[in-house]
Amino acid sequence: MGRWQPGASGRLGQAAMELYFERGYDQTTVAEIAQRAGVTSRTFFRYFVDKREVLFAGTDAVRERLVATLDTVPPDTTPLGTVRAALDAVVALIGDDHDHSRRRQQIITTHAELRERELAKLAAWSRALADGLRQRGVDEPAASLAAEVGVAVFRVAFEQWTTGPGDRSLVEVMHDSFGRIPTA
Amino acid sequence: MGRWQPGASGRLGQAAMELYFERGYDQTTVAEIAQRAGVTSRTFFRYFVDKREVLFAGTDAVRERLVATLDTVPPDTTPLGTVRAALDAVVALIGDDHDHSRRRQQIITTHAELRERELAKLAAWSRALADGLRQRGVDEPAASLAAEVGVAVFRVAFEQWTTGPGDRSLVEVMHDSFGRIPTA
Repeated sequence: MGRWQPGASGRLGQAAMELYFERGYDQTTVAEIAQRAGVTSRTFFRYFVDKREVLFAGTDAVRERLVATLDTVPPDTTPLGTVRAALDAVVALIGDDHDHSRRRQQIITTHAELRERELAKLAAWSRALADGLRQRGVDEPAASLAAEVGVAVFRVAFEQWTTGPGDRSLVEVMHDSFGRIPTA
Repeated sequence: MGRWQPGASGRLGQAAMELYFERGYDQTTVAEIAQRAGVTSRTFFRYFVDKREVLFAGTDAVRERLVATLDTVPPDTTPLGTVRAALDAVVALIGDDHDHSRRRQQIITTHAELRERELAKLAAWSRALADGLRQRGVDEPAASLAAEVGVAVFRVAFEQWTTGPGDRSLVEVMHDSFGRIPTA
């Protein structure tokens, strides 16, 4: 999730990514991450439950940003337009560090437990967006369809961006995908 | 996944569903499932890795059906139309046992490990569909967008159907959702 925050948590995140990339995720221990970051394992566990969660730091903040952004969208915006505005805010939060995102996705893609965690994260975004749309008065199934389709578009765009050369910004790739949503 | 097959595997599936519903998923052991089905635990493990997998019996068959159906769709069909045809075949395979599907979803929804497994299943469908579309000559990101959006529509329709009164068939609910895909 974008650049690491300053402080111990950010140093741990940075150290974990370096080690996962150098040695592999399976071969890296919490003790090694803590050592590289210059803190104790005890400090590691103050910030993260396990080495998996380091890769998902900031997930709650992103979901909160999604929901908070919904309130700023003009009420006459379509459900999908509202979802797109919320995802724009998330993309701004993730930032445009292509190399960081590419490395992170490579680690996630090659580990089933990380892929499952990533899917759970995106499903939580979708649920939060559908809840937010219903609170804006959008009926079902329109709320869930806009949320699920919007997150599906994000997922495709994010994969395209991280596996591509990084010559375009993530927001550009995502807007392009939003313009290509297929209908029956 | 629809009605249980005849034989020990089907009896185990039936027994597991009954016990999960009567006692709760967490409170049910493999030994109890085997006993209710009139077989040994050893027989259980001949068919399933663990009690979680009983709920996902037939998942591979469904994915194979998805891929096999792609070959029967006329080549001039749109990518999303092709995905819809494949999902129609899956819905026919799942069947229209509303009560069974509703109970199964209730169990899955209330357990994080089952929700993750369900998400992984749907992600595998989406990957298989995108692969199949690329083999039909569909470019990226059109192939992934059609696959992801199609599976998103299925997911919304399936949830709507299982949480609803069951007065409409799943295929009807799904076609309705395909007709409501939002675009920017």
